[in-house]
Amino acid sequence: MDTLENVQLKLETMNAQADRAYLRLSRKFGQLRLHHLERRNLLIQNIPGFWGQAFQNHPQLSSFLNNQDKEVLSYLNSLEVEELGLARLGYKIKFYFGRNPYFQNKVLIKEYGCGPSGQVVSRSTPIQWLPGHDLQSLSQGSPENSRSFFGWFSNHSSIESDKIVEIINEELWPNPLQYYLMSEGARVEKGKEGKPVPARPPGETSEPADNKSN
Amino acid sequence: MDTLENVQLKLETMNAQADRAYLRLSRKFGQLRLHHLERRNLLIQNIPGFWGQAFQNHPQLSSFLNNQDKEVLSYLNSLEVEELGLARLGYKIKFYFGRNPYFQNKVLIKEYGCGPSGQVVSRSTPIQWLPGHDLQSLSQGSPENSRSFFGWFSNHSSIESDKIVEIINEELWPNPLQYYLMSEGARVEKGKEGKPVPARPPGETSEPADNKSN
Repeated sequence: MDTLENVQLKLETMNAQADRAYLRLSRKFGQLRLHHLERRNLLIQNIPGFWGQAFQNHPQLSSFLNNQDKEVLSYLNSLEVEELGLARLGYKIKFYFGRNPYFQNKVLIKEYGCGPSGQVVSRSTPIQWLPGHDLQSLSQGSPENSRSFFGWFSNHSSIESDKIVEIINEELWPNPLQYYLMSEGARVEKGKEGKPVPARPPGETSEPADNKSN
Repeated sequence: MDTLENVQLKLETMNAQADRAYLRLSRKFGQLRLHHLERRNLLIQNIPGFWGQAFQNHPQLSSFLNNQDKEVLSYLNSLEVEELGLARLGYKIKFYFGRNPYFQNKVLIKEYGCGPSGQVVSRSTPIQWLPGHDLQSLSQGSPENSRSFFGWFSNHSSIESDKIVEIINEELWPNPLQYYLMSEGARVEKGKEGKPVPARPPGETSEPADNKSN
């Protein structure tokens, strides 16, 4: 007959097994994912201005970009979204920039997630602006200020900030191609619903149906 | 030769496979865990005042309990911690109370977790206090106010609140037995480090080494 102590031991043995099984699974798929993502990054880097275009074509993201942001994002060579822990515990978004007239950083990192009991953890790389090109101070007080990529990047507490992280992680990163391919017309036409319409020759049907990230 | 479109498709196919694999794993261990936990709850319910004693014996939790809290927690028949989503995305802590002189609720639920982009989500059952027994209003302004179980229960924003959720989820729930078994002496002696010392006959070594929750 089970004692409380025996049941407690069985429970903990099983929890340890579960932890190991989750770890194995995340390692297995993590490596597969990494392989595909590295391949994708390489192919994207052969398409000049891919990421800047994808940001501008995204129906919601574009509304957060002012003209200076668009100019700076044209120097964005590579984007990486890293998941922290299992199952969307947090994200690390890495923006790799080429040499540009605005800042010295080669990579800007925005980290976003929650701690063990639900508190938000958010931080971002301090931007080393070049003299006279600090877009944050330049846009101070301008009506564009609240709608600025770099305003978002350095802001860790606004709903808007949450929203942009969510769009990048759950829409842009899972399938940047479909936003890059969006036509101007489709963007204007579909902007409200945020449903991208890829500019494709009619009959071409290779657009993936499932955009789930994981 | 891979095109960007092919790589994108492979990536999404793999992500969908990973999602299904995680779901299968969490269902499998979820059922096993449930079986052990139900067994544990049954055995605990045969030990009158188990949970109240476990709360009082926990070196940190006890410091959050005032005398009225201890009295109310003596009516706590059962505790359940439910995980929301995979891998600690959030928690639902259910307190099942017997008939008591303080409130009408049979169960009080505290929910704690984070949304898709890291924002904290927290809510708790409104307590239906019986006339003249509202511990929250009674303890208003008293020095004990900031250190009250029911102050914590209804507070969704304090560091203290985070801390108590963390202790319940990661220490009390994974192994309540070791706190129930703690001796008064051990509690006083070890209170600072928060390391419980079970009151056990010397030589008995069945205390699990691994207290990991899942």
